[in-house]
Amino acid sequence: MEIKTPYLLFLGDAPDQPAAKTALGVVDWRPEWCVGQLRLPGCKADAGVPDLTIGEAVAKGAKTLVIGVVNSGGVLPHSWVETIVTALEAGLDVASGLHRRLQSIPEVNAAAEKHGRALHNLRTPAEEFTTGKGAHRTGKRVLTVGTDCNVGKKYTALALEREMRERGLKADFRATGQTGVLISRRGTSVDAVIADFISGAAEWLSPSNDDDHWDLVEGQGSIWHPSFAGVTLGLLHGAQPDAVVLCHEPTRTKMRGTDYPLPSIRSTIDTILHLGRLTNPAIQCVGIAVNTSQLPEGEVARYLKGLEREHGLPATDPIRHGVGPIVDRLLACVP
Amino acid sequence: MEIKTPYLLFLGDAPDQPAAKTALGVVDWRPEWCVGQLRLPGCKADAGVPDLTIGEAVAKGAKTLVIGVVNSGGVLPHSWVETIVTALEAGLDVASGLHRRLQSIPEVNAAAEKHGRALHNLRTPAEEFTTGKGAHRTGKRVLTVGTDCNVGKKYTALALEREMRERGLKADFRATGQTGVLISRRGTSVDAVIADFISGAAEWLSPSNDDDHWDLVEGQGSIWHPSFAGVTLGLLHGAQPDAVVLCHEPTRTKMRGTDYPLPSIRSTIDTILHLGRLTNPAIQCVGIAVNTSQLPEGEVARYLKGLEREHGLPATDPIRHGVGPIVDRLLACVP
Repeated sequence: MEIKTPYLLFLGDAPDQPAAKTALGVVDWRPEWCVGQLRLPGCKADAGVPDLTIGEAVAKGAKTLVIGVVNSGGVLPHSWVETIVTALEAGLDVASGLHRRLQSIPEVNAAAEKHGRALHNLRTPAEEFTTGKGAHRTGKRVLTVGTDCNVGKKYTALALEREMRERGLKADFRATGQTGVLISRRGTSVDAVIADFISGAAEWLSPSNDDDHWDLVEGQGSIWHPSFAGVTLGLLHGAQPDAVVLCHEPTRTKMRGTDYPLPSIRSTIDTILHLGRLTNPAIQCVGIAVNTSQLPEGEVARYLKGLEREHGLPATDPIRHGVGPIVDRLLACVP
Repeated sequence: MEIKTPYLLFLGDAPDQPAAKTALGVVDWRPEWCVGQLRLPGCKADAGVPDLTIGEAVAKGAKTLVIGVVNSGGVLPHSWVETIVTALEAGLDVASGLHRRLQSIPEVNAAAEKHGRALHNLRTPAEEFTTGKGAHRTGKRVLTVGTDCNVGKKYTALALEREMRERGLKADFRATGQTGVLISRRGTSVDAVIADFISGAAEWLSPSNDDDHWDLVEGQGSIWHPSFAGVTLGLLHGAQPDAVVLCHEPTRTKMRGTDYPLPSIRSTIDTILHLGRLTNPAIQCVGIAVNTSQLPEGEVARYLKGLEREHGLPATDPIRHGVGPIVDRLLACVP
């Protein structure tokens, strides 16, 4: 079921900007869907859209209240429940990135049933998945992969979608995490599905399509991350990508949440291609997307040039320079 | 929570022997725990243990009724529910390999609560897992891996446990599937955990232990299976094995449930070691366990000799010949 737009972004009493990163991600990529934000007293985050009451948002056409903020301690404050119920009564659906399912909050569940509103839990798959089949599907697919978690895989897939659409190509971002689902109104958090169904969920996510249609699939984790490699591999097999784009953050030394050193770009690409050939023998890597925000300004160009020479691939920072060279390579390499 | 033994095996109205394979697996490895079987009219399976009523089983000391049979169509027949409730009233716990949770059957749930009995759902993890940490644990671990699903990974891990215990070693089989959980009274179906927690579940399963203690971890799936490789990889990373044993069925040409050709033994071992080095840099392969039941009798010895020459590893059929040579190699290679 698609999440209805436009959105009213609920930021609660977020203690800082990072706590609201889901809401901020939606504004980054779909500002036209965000009529405003609703902040409670003490909120330190700002999505840069107008502050609106629920009534004002409804008058501006809002269809869904998006809880795009992490609540500290995991306990849902009473003031949040009140806001959610008021939104349902005013005619909004609610989409939540909280761990707790909205249906498990009695007041919220009762209000949704009474007013016939939809409750979307972005962290809980709404679909019944099956095991992956590994059968070939029509259409073309790109998957973003990374040397680590949080190195720009979602951002890069979205930048590819934007660039390809600007070139008049049929291109759809396919979301595998909660922020991505809000941005595309559809998708699933693949890390929350039953382990047996990871590749099946990825197959559901990027079904057969026109021969000239591109799916840009948001990657998860890293094939070298000791916590999440299983999810990464199931997603790789299910997405059966024709091409991958390697995402990297050059100043990071340890893999997120671990004492493991960051793997090399080379070994990550090689291993992804080795494993990915199972479900798509023609898989290739068409570029390197680098988050250079932590590099000294003067080193960026030299660093990217070095990567291009070393790997024979276009290397670019999607935020600074866009992904034009990667799309050029993609279109040249995938028939 | 450990499942209490001994067991009364419930075979229901199993249409054939394969339908009761969970019960048969328990009898194979823990005959001393199986006081008898309970079969309904029309049952075509036979576990080779005495037919007992629930009252007779209780008198013989049974503690748990084990539903070790697949029900056709997924609907739970009323006669089964009646039997389960009678068992609970008679003082037995119930362990079930059915997809449907026992607690979701109102009569069963009520009887369990009333009589204070435990309900074990072997396909639904009872633990709350977290993400894997990848931290080194003490003790030694062996994981069975395979060129495909259903090639003897559970059987081989159990045969290793038996051989090592006979040699006076500290060795524990660690179950990752429902039959294995019944055989070891503990464990979890790793393919049923949330994808994010696969490696975390494997870490929980084989915790730190004495330096001279061996965990024999039951493998799942295959690193080259398009449906299940994610589970296989998460289990590999979480188990952080010092050694793996490769399991193979030589007459199979397609991977189970797919049109994919069986991968080679060589590429399976190489890929497992390449990926497994992440959480255990000393990982090695110490043997090949072959299910030769489908090979012509006269070819078995020559086939195994050929494998030994080709791979420089002991190759044996655990059922025909035991796993002595593999344990010899293991003890010689893992300090």
